[in-house]
Amino acid sequence: MLRIINQQADVRAELQRICDRTHDEQVLHKEATVREVLQAVQRQGDKAVLHYTAEFDHQTFKADELRVTAAEIDAAYQQVSKQLIDSIQLASKQIEAFHRQRVPKSWVHFGDDEVVLGKRYTPVDRAGLYVPGGRACYPSTVLMNAVPAKVAGVPRIVMVTPPGTGKGISPAVLVAANEAGVREIYRIGGAQAIAALAYGTETIPKVDVITGPGNIYVTIAKKLVYGNVGIDSLAGPSEVLIIADGTANPIHVATDLLAQAEHDPMAAAILLTTDAGLAKNVQVALERQLMDHPRQVDTSKAIAHYGLIVVVESLEIAAQFSNEFAPEHLELEVEDPWGLLPLIRHAGAIFLGHSTPEAVGDYLAGPNHTLPTSGAARYASALGVETFLKHSSIIQYSQTALEKVATAIDTLATAEGLPSHADSVRCRVRKDNSDSEL
Amino acid sequence: MLRIINQQADVRAELQRICDRTHDEQVLHKEATVREVLQAVQRQGDKAVLHYTAEFDHQTFKADELRVTAAEIDAAYQQVSKQLIDSIQLASKQIEAFHRQRVPKSWVHFGDDEVVLGKRYTPVDRAGLYVPGGRACYPSTVLMNAVPAKVAGVPRIVMVTPPGTGKGISPAVLVAANEAGVREIYRIGGAQAIAALAYGTETIPKVDVITGPGNIYVTIAKKLVYGNVGIDSLAGPSEVLIIADGTANPIHVATDLLAQAEHDPMAAAILLTTDAGLAKNVQVALERQLMDHPRQVDTSKAIAHYGLIVVVESLEIAAQFSNEFAPEHLELEVEDPWGLLPLIRHAGAIFLGHSTPEAVGDYLAGPNHTLPTSGAARYASALGVETFLKHSSIIQYSQTALEKVATAIDTLATAEGLPSHADSVRCRVRKDNSDSEL
Repeated sequence: MLRIINQQADVRAELQRICDRTHDEQVLHKEATVREVLQAVQRQGDKAVLHYTAEFDHQTFKADELRVTAAEIDAAYQQVSKQLIDSIQLASKQIEAFHRQRVPKSWVHFGDDEVVLGKRYTPVDRAGLYVPGGRACYPSTVLMNAVPAKVAGVPRIVMVTPPGTGKGISPAVLVAANEAGVREIYRIGGAQAIAALAYGTETIPKVDVITGPGNIYVTIAKKLVYGNVGIDSLAGPSEVLIIADGTANPIHVATDLLAQAEHDPMAAAILLTTDAGLAKNVQVALERQLMDHPRQVDTSKAIAHYGLIVVVESLEIAAQFSNEFAPEHLELEVEDPWGLLPLIRHAGAIFLGHSTPEAVGDYLAGPNHTLPTSGAARYASALGVETFLKHSSIIQYSQTALEKVATAIDTLATAEGLPSHADSVRCRVRKDNSDSEL
Repeated sequence: MLRIINQQADVRAELQRICDRTHDEQVLHKEATVREVLQAVQRQGDKAVLHYTAEFDHQTFKADELRVTAAEIDAAYQQVSKQLIDSIQLASKQIEAFHRQRVPKSWVHFGDDEVVLGKRYTPVDRAGLYVPGGRACYPSTVLMNAVPAKVAGVPRIVMVTPPGTGKGISPAVLVAANEAGVREIYRIGGAQAIAALAYGTETIPKVDVITGPGNIYVTIAKKLVYGNVGIDSLAGPSEVLIIADGTANPIHVATDLLAQAEHDPMAAAILLTTDAGLAKNVQVALERQLMDHPRQVDTSKAIAHYGLIVVVESLEIAAQFSNEFAPEHLELEVEDPWGLLPLIRHAGAIFLGHSTPEAVGDYLAGPNHTLPTSGAARYASALGVETFLKHSSIIQYSQTALEKVATAIDTLATAEGLPSHADSVRCRVRKDNSDSEL
């Protein structure tokens, strides 16, 4: 049963508990295992990757079988419906269109003072995309990672995904990869796949940035290799927070909460509403839908542990609680969502109004569905083209321009006790050019 | 003596060795200490912070002495020269001007198809700036961290810096902080300061993002708390790579190499040149300057271990080696730096021509001096306003717009085995409105 509490209860503590649901002690124990896998792959390359694939994924490969063949990718198109191919293509097109908006561009400013300053954006050389396997094997994840990398202009995009039973990869995943222009795919997963991408092996190229969600082992591995390579984020289980008033349809709200809960027993689904009647109706509607939900066991767990309805006195208070939680997904199912929007400070993605269920954004609206979780929206944003770009600062001073700032640099360098910093300007502006004095 | 090798030597291995100079095994041992500090501060707050400040910084405080007083900040202005205040103000002004350029702006696009999409940028609520103490106590570091946070619009900026001897903080640091608008300063440092900012204590507020360089304990602490809060990067020791042809002045080049080496015995200073004569002259000039360098011992260590001159056959080959090293600072001391620039793919900051020593960028050109080190320029960029901003995706579909994509979403959700995702659209577009069927 989805719990209902009201504003007088200790809402803050409840939200904190839900937000912190992954900060558990077991991570530390798993870290030792992950470290061992990383070190083995770093030292032994393919041999270690094949060993852990046999151990954890129960699949025995030779190194030259790791890469998915062109024939497999082409054959995948025969194994899915025309309607699914069309839907993947529509999603790919819309995701690409959104990600092409406002991509940061290189610029250079030539000042009147003979100073040239700028920023030059370039893509990373190689990106590694992790696509989870098993139950969570989603073509949408492929698109949301590969399309931004493609838009950024990354010359080499490598995808890894755990081998399915019988060594096959989901054909929908292969179709999505191909539609996004990715044809270098390896059937490896887990910490060993992250290690292979971070350090490189005989078969798998070392990449510059690794993106994509995974289980707890993948997440720990990403954190440990961060610094050696770039990563997108440390993704936790998914979450939705819905703010609804009396104009919301309880069936819609209940379904949206379930759409989050069905992802994972650790998923969180929270409703903040000003309407006690709606709260009750959502509770009833959700219970009814849950009765014959195909993923009933896991979905019920998520609802029981990390589901919550809070009846609040005003939308302002709802916004305040929402900001403290900083949800990955935020739905504003209220009469005037644009009026409420300015009160929202932290959220990964915001879905406005009664006709914008989160699923629209999960699949094809265009914005990325890889979003900060567990409160990370306080400081982080969606995966994007920027994840695959970096910039170099550009600085050029003329001799005249340098002379104008020479004293200030000298003063600062001397204050910081860095004599050669001061010298590097002095030797260039010295009037008599008597370099030999240095 | 600064070593000279030529292109036929194993340049790649040498550059790799220099790039990897911090990836050592001792990190793992220090991690246990840092973890203990983090856990103690998380559990005991101020008490643990005071304990470790006594243990590591040999300073005994009460909790209410941790914050630097307004009187101390104001008094700092009397303890530094007018010239230094002017120089700090000039640097602050120029850094602010650069960081105000091309700050990402919120945008919303209202499509003809009744779809509204956008990105809304907001600053983090609280930023924590770490400013190192001791020998590396730099007012420039204060400006380079505080000014971007201010430009981003962060409402609360908190600075921490280790207590100097006699409980005093460098007056230049206090002046720089005040000029950048930061007046909430705590005299704490090390892993205990990072822990206090990440978790909050009775005295120190929990922040959303922590930036700024520090020693190895600070860096390890930042990596461990990443995910709980945002961080800017994992800064390693500084490095410069200079590409020079026969038009470069050997005294200038030698001084610029020393200006890097004087930072730290782990700093790296590399010259790639097409001119064997220049190589020899730089070697001699550097040796001469090193003889009576005020920081001779440490600077010589850096030059001996992580200094290198490589004589290459062409600037193209130099660019290639530079890209593989991905230097934090890159100087192009060549006749046509703008002609060489397009060949450069990875570098934190690029200094063009003969009158642009790195010190210009270190202090006051405007671009940030907090840059990716140890090869991180392959995937990362300078600290900037973006470090303190994040965005929320904005999505609104009308009923009509939702109906148009309903089939595609249904197809994708069904392929991914997520029935409530499909339902969340179905229940909204159903023609007969018979909600009770769900």
